[in-house]
Amino acid sequence: MDQNAPETNDIPDVVVRRLPIYARTLDYLLTEGKSSVSSQELGERINVTAAQIRKDLSWFGEFGKQGIGYDVEKLLGHINRILGLTVNWPVVLVGLVYLGQAIARYAGFREKGLHIVALFDADPTKAGTILNGLPIQGDEEIPRTVATHGVKLAIVAVPATKAQEVVDQLIAAGVRGILNYAPIIVQAPEGVWVRHIDPVSLLHSMTYYLAREQAT
Amino acid sequence: MDQNAPETNDIPDVVVRRLPIYARTLDYLLTEGKSSVSSQELGERINVTAAQIRKDLSWFGEFGKQGIGYDVEKLLGHINRILGLTVNWPVVLVGLVYLGQAIARYAGFREKGLHIVALFDADPTKAGTILNGLPIQGDEEIPRTVATHGVKLAIVAVPATKAQEVVDQLIAAGVRGILNYAPIIVQAPEGVWVRHIDPVSLLHSMTYYLAREQAT
Repeated sequence: MDQNAPETNDIPDVVVRRLPIYARTLDYLLTEGKSSVSSQELGERINVTAAQIRKDLSWFGEFGKQGIGYDVEKLLGHINRILGLTVNWPVVLVGLVYLGQAIARYAGFREKGLHIVALFDADPTKAGTILNGLPIQGDEEIPRTVATHGVKLAIVAVPATKAQEVVDQLIAAGVRGILNYAPIIVQAPEGVWVRHIDPVSLLHSMTYYLAREQAT
Repeated sequence: MDQNAPETNDIPDVVVRRLPIYARTLDYLLTEGKSSVSSQELGERINVTAAQIRKDLSWFGEFGKQGIGYDVEKLLGHINRILGLTVNWPVVLVGLVYLGQAIARYAGFREKGLHIVALFDADPTKAGTILNGLPIQGDEEIPRTVATHGVKLAIVAVPATKAQEVVDQLIAAGVRGILNYAPIIVQAPEGVWVRHIDPVSLLHSMTYYLAREQAT
């Protein structure tokens, strides 16, 4: 839905989206000291059927052994390679009101190979302020900074009214993947990926079920 | 994937999840002064095919008119009724470090019928502090407050290590739908819905494509 993948790619996007969740779960299993896991057990942890997991992973080769399951560390390594996570990825963050500030301070990105290398905000009174070790730059610095760092990924946490403009600016500067927190579906040309974080829509998809229950 | 819908429900969860996004887009169309929209135009705005939109909406009855399209206001009203949004929903928020504070201050929930009625944090030094007009309560107050307000929805923004415990506590208190920001797949019994906000996984699903491009 928020996906503009070029059509040259055969693997369904829904599968690509599940891989990081498998990786996260394998990470937990490792910290729990587990060295092997069945597709059944992996599936139970993330509410996916064992068959689905086997089918998803079969896109990328033969990983498991019948009756033994998956080697946790090996499978995690495989998935991380598939996801391009053998290197760290520089990321820029635009929009530093409350949510953006929380994102800038969140350690979980860096732990997972996503290094926020620059912060931008349109508010000139914020320029030069240091946030979590990085100076806040004006939006006009986006082109130069994105080019200097060869940044391909951006997180957008600006208001809805500014989101499309910022996204256009990022794409013009060379960004190819955008995680958008603004409550608007932003448009991007083919070859640029956009993912939306939309808590209101997720909550509304639950009120649907709750309302139905109350009605019966 | 993060869905435990009872099997009595026929409409695919993926359709239910798209409805709020249709509603959001219809809302924008209204503010732009548009009174009717084709499935084609609606689809282009959210990167869904026109056929998909027609198919999704056909689960709920006949909305559009061949050659004329959808009446924006009517369709929005229909979808809001389907989603149970003719009433406001009380929501509690647990976890008030940076991200939780940003969530507490976000006006977008209330504008969309989601009223945060109580704030909880395990840190006793925060208890009694007022945040965005609400006093912060200790986690031990969860059962009483949830019962008093008849709360069915909760937002969880605690660290990963605490998330399952908090979710269990919320469910025991009567919560039936959970929006989880903690970077862990939390488990819930059947009949409780869980949605995960997972920015790291979304970014990793994009590094997959970017890495493939760089390799070719």
